[in-house]
Amino acid sequence: MTTQRTTHQLSSPVTVVGLGPMGRALAGALLEKGHPLTVWNRTPEKAEDLVARGARSAATVAEAVSASPVTVMCLKDYATMYEVFDPAGEAPAGRTLVNLNSGTPQEAQAAHSWAGERGMEYLDGAIMVPPPLVGQPGAVFLYSGSREVFDKQRETLASLGDPRHLGTDPGLAVLHNTALLEMMFATMNGWLHAAALVGSAGVPASRFAELAFGWFMPTVVSNTFFLEQAANLDKAHYPGDLGTMEMNLNALEHIARTSEEQGIHSRQPHVMKEIAEQAIADGYGDRSYLSLFEVFKKAAQAQGPSRPRP
Amino acid sequence: MTTQRTTHQLSSPVTVVGLGPMGRALAGALLEKGHPLTVWNRTPEKAEDLVARGARSAATVAEAVSASPVTVMCLKDYATMYEVFDPAGEAPAGRTLVNLNSGTPQEAQAAHSWAGERGMEYLDGAIMVPPPLVGQPGAVFLYSGSREVFDKQRETLASLGDPRHLGTDPGLAVLHNTALLEMMFATMNGWLHAAALVGSAGVPASRFAELAFGWFMPTVVSNTFFLEQAANLDKAHYPGDLGTMEMNLNALEHIARTSEEQGIHSRQPHVMKEIAEQAIADGYGDRSYLSLFEVFKKAAQAQGPSRPRP
Ligand SMILES: NC(=O)c1ccc[n+]([C@@H]2O[C@H](COP(=O)([O-])OP(=O)(O)OC[C@H]3O[C@@H](n4cnc5c(N)ncnc54)[C@H](OP(=O)(O)O)[C@@H]3O)[C@@H](O)[C@H]2O)c1
Ligand SMILES: NC(=O)c1ccc[n+]([C@@H]2O[C@H](COP(=O)([O-])OP(=O)(O)OC[C@H]3O[C@@H](n4cnc5c(N)ncnc54)[C@H](OP(=O)(O)O)[C@@H]3O)[C@@H](O)[C@H]2O)c1
Repeated sequence: MTTQRTTHQLSSPVTVVGLGPMGRALAGALLEKGHPLTVWNRTPEKAEDLVARGARSAATVAEAVSASPVTVMCLKDYATMYEVFDPAGEAPAGRTLVNLNSGTPQEAQAAHSWAGERGMEYLDGAIMVPPPLVGQPGAVFLYSGSREVFDKQRETLASLGDPRHLGTDPGLAVLHNTALLEMMFATMNGWLHAAALVGSAGVPASRFAELAFGWFMPTVVSNTFFLEQAANLDKAHYPGDLGTMEMNLNALEHIARTSEEQGIHSRQPHVMKEIAEQAIADGYGDRSYLSLFEVFKKAAQAQGPSRPRP
Repeated sequence: MTTQRTTHQLSSPVTVVGLGPMGRALAGALLEKGHPLTVWNRTPEKAEDLVARGARSAATVAEAVSASPVTVMCLKDYATMYEVFDPAGEAPAGRTLVNLNSGTPQEAQAAHSWAGERGMEYLDGAIMVPPPLVGQPGAVFLYSGSREVFDKQRETLASLGDPRHLGTDPGLAVLHNTALLEMMFATMNGWLHAAALVGSAGVPASRFAELAFGWFMPTVVSNTFFLEQAANLDKAHYPGDLGTMEMNLNALEHIARTSEEQGIHSRQPHVMKEIAEQAIADGYGDRSYLSLFEVFKKAAQAQGPSRPRP
């Protein structure tokens, strides 16, 4: 560690505001990579360990932000950010703020405007790993907003994880974060409900996992398949020759009915069945299952009963 | 093809009943592997191509079933099977019936009893590949019911795809089929809704797919992770140290809210959020997201507002 600090002696000073589990991980990684570090947290005790490792604990947010050209913020949410920064007055002007808390694209866009009005450069980001993986190989951080600000802060950002710039719209980082997390949740929900289905017949999840993850998912539902099909979504091209929405609705009906027969939770398969029914009502009955994309792109209430087929 | 037929000359005779897209694929694979083949279909024209390749078309189901020791059946559903077999009278007695249509475990169990009453040996199965992959390397067929019948028919079954016996309960094949398909649908739904989310900001699905399937899914939501975690489900062991249900509910709220802000379909994230809320009401707020398994194992109405934590 000492060697590493020496190597990185020229790393630029950074301030971290917010020392929850994630903020402490960010601060730890920055110390590790040799950045002179200033921290602030509402509950100052959470800084103690970092101070022991060389960080400086600021008494106020204004003092913290003034200590470094760039402040990395990781508070609970956007509302907390405003609450914490308001007392700082003019101090943040001329500084760069990198905001890593979670939220919605509109919240990120509003924060960008708010920072601009206070003379701060602003970058919005999303952390794609849990705290123990921050600063480790394979950690990915998504950013959006000014490309210039991103490039200027790249060295500091790289101390936290592989920094990826998604575009100048400041909402893109949290939007991508939201979308990727939905994929994670949907996949987990599918697995957990499937395990409950076979579990209802006494099959252990660990046995089913061999079939599900040792064979089915890697071969039948492969990442490669989705990668190859993605361009078809952009063209609204959904050939039904290998299986139609009608056929898949039939399978979804079996899943919903089986869940009920087996006495387990059946809301999730019922909702998937209803979404497929919506696709058929919208005219995609003889198209592939991927045509569900057309249903998802529109708010539910805006959907007419039968739109023309692409 | 001629060479192959010669090699497999000793393959046992098989009858296929039902020549929809899947039945024709089954029949084609059996011919390819050298089984003397008899077929029957309500619409006899669908047999023409197979007859040209050497199959015999039977005039009645009774005649078809009598022609071979084993009949592979691939009709629309279980109700169709009863309708088609009723006129066959005593003919099926002493024969083996392998039923490959889709349905529910209770339907498979009832079919097993029905076959037994008619003096038939019965095996229930599920086809895990689309028609063009039947008989190809990598094709997997799931079976359940008597192990003895399975072993006796293994050579014939192997002509269709890798045959896997799941247990003696005849409902297990369709139950596993249902569970695996739910995983497929849930994963596809997650991807398609996520693509709609980023699409609402003008990001093409093909660009998002690079991030989603080129990096996120293989590394963050890996098959290996689920395989390793499966034993914890069987032990109801859900440590929350790397992330709690409360934290994930927060993310699910962002997903639902973002879907609305962006003007896209929001039912799916809302339902996922409600299921996570149910888990918290059930006492799993400080456990990992995998504790959703406990929610799914019980019918919705049976869930009290707060059950003890495991
Ligand atoms: N943990 C993860 O795995 C993870 C992963 C990706 C993204 N994130 C995101 O990172 C952000 C921080 O998460 P976290 O896990 O560190 O914990 P958190 O509970 O979301 O946030 C804790 C931080 O917010 C501060 N805070 C909360 N309310 C406050 C208020 N009214 N005034 C001042 N400060 C307040 C806390 O200060 P006190 O210490 O004084 O309470 C603490 O610094 C969140 O947006 C989260 O979504 C977390
Ligand atoms: N296709 C796939 O990708 C796939 C994959 C896995 C499992 N499966 C399952 O395999 C089974 C067959 O599927 P499929 O794709 O071949 O098409 P299908 O449309 O499900 O079934 C067509 C077959 O059922 C017959 N049939 C329907 N109603 C009938 C009736 N009242 N009386 C007599 N015969 C009747 C049809 O006869 P006619 O030709 O006279 O109409 C035809 O032989 C289904 O249970 C399906 O779920 C299919």
